[in-house]
Amino acid sequence: MGKIRRIERVAALTKELVDHPYELYSFTDFCKRYDVAKSTLSEDVQAIRNGLAAYDLGIVETLAGAAGGVRFIPCHTKVSDEEFLKALAVRMAEPERILPGGMIYMNDLLLTPKLLLRLGEIIMSRNKGHVPEYVMTVETKGIPLALFVARAYNVPLVMARRESRITEGSAVSINYVSGSTKRIQAMSLPKRALPAEARVLIVDDFMKAGGTAKGLRDLALEVGAEVVGTGFLVATREPEHKMVDDYFSLFVLHGVDDAARTIDIRPN
Amino acid sequence: MGKIRRIERVAALTKELVDHPYELYSFTDFCKRYDVAKSTLSEDVQAIRNGLAAYDLGIVETLAGAAGGVRFIPCHTKVSDEEFLKALAVRMAEPERILPGGMIYMNDLLLTPKLLLRLGEIIMSRNKGHVPEYVMTVETKGIPLALFVARAYNVPLVMARRESRITEGSAVSINYVSGSTKRIQAMSLPKRALPAEARVLIVDDFMKAGGTAKGLRDLALEVGAEVVGTGFLVATREPEHKMVDDYFSLFVLHGVDDAARTIDIRPN
Repeated sequence: MGKIRRIERVAALTKELVDHPYELYSFTDFCKRYDVAKSTLSEDVQAIRNGLAAYDLGIVETLAGAAGGVRFIPCHTKVSDEEFLKALAVRMAEPERILPGGMIYMNDLLLTPKLLLRLGEIIMSRNKGHVPEYVMTVETKGIPLALFVARAYNVPLVMARRESRITEGSAVSINYVSGSTKRIQAMSLPKRALPAEARVLIVDDFMKAGGTAKGLRDLALEVGAEVVGTGFLVATREPEHKMVDDYFSLFVLHGVDDAARTIDIRPN
Repeated sequence: MGKIRRIERVAALTKELVDHPYELYSFTDFCKRYDVAKSTLSEDVQAIRNGLAAYDLGIVETLAGAAGGVRFIPCHTKVSDEEFLKALAVRMAEPERILPGGMIYMNDLLLTPKLLLRLGEIIMSRNKGHVPEYVMTVETKGIPLALFVARAYNVPLVMARRESRITEGSAVSINYVSGSTKRIQAMSLPKRALPAEARVLIVDDFMKAGGTAKGLRDLALEVGAEVVGTGFLVATREPEHKMVDDYFSLFVLHGVDDAARTIDIRPN
């Protein structure tokens, strides 16, 4: 290939960094790959850092030392995250979302990559625990959100099932009590999905009493993993006492009034 | 904010474009947002196009005219796609993936965002039909892959369920015959998930006889949508005659030999 101009190289470097959040690229590797001197590369990285910061598009971190390098963290300012959630709360409260039984239809939002991308990044930012090595959820509706949290951290997703499947090999199973219905249910995880001592972030779309979340946590502990946090898109205000105590949610659902056709949902 | 240098602006522009594939940004909007003249912006876009092309990171397209603008298509050269699939086939053929009954464990691959990102882009490139407005799949294992195909096109995912759920409102249901087990099964889609006449790409992880794929297609047609293509990660060689005829797959599974502990899977 012909000689690449600096401005062209910066475009390529930006794309590589933002596509692989948290991945630490060593300067030496980048210098080889892009055929530039380390001083030149440092200036390029500085320009990318400034450009992304100026438009609130994420943080480029440089780590010094032998094991050092450069990596991209896909986070935004608190103010802009709050604006995004406020606007989303307005959409979530649209009366036509109310379904019989006070449930809310949210599939259109929860299956839109553009929204999921940002929601995944916000859940990442709100997790105050360690950076996880895995994100864990249970089928079905939480999968898309959890997958984009996994994307924000650039780590694999682990998916518990309501029953174990032949295509997933031997599994660890637990029984748990659904917090809302008080029924005993089962949840399983393929044995090879999660190594012992792995750091896990639990993510789900919705929490009411927290029975499922507790089940996920028990399942993670059962295989010897360490739960670094538990995050939800929406948690209900009632019941106030949840079956898990250490969690965060982006929204709190204060109530759905089926008769008045109103949804009271607020960013947290 | 202070004056942004060109090289910094190019980093920000790159990030915006690659985060929103297929989204057409008008030059006028970009000029306002980044406070630059159109001629300057054109040169920036040209630099991004050259930089991404030089490292096979995707295509920046400029559309002329009043409705014109610039957009990013996340595709790669055929050669590099083939290399990626060849390397992945080697991993998929690892003997320890063999499960009882000749099934293959692939969760670790199918739940890794970095791999899914590329697989989604390759399925996008292999679809020779129209650009879809929706990507459609059925729970559970196909969801992550389908979601990243949806991400490549930057369109919503539509998710059929094995049974209809109260949280999804009124639904359209069909019965279909599983091609492998010959059993009658049901599949449903929330009525509001897919508008009539929408262009839909069907995506799933695995196809044997094609019963599920046919069910998905029937379900899409039932709501009046137009199926522009049907793509799989893996299709089995046997049975040769599938219940859908117009499909593509990235891999063909020629066979699993449980006794010899070998998997014969090849890029297509």
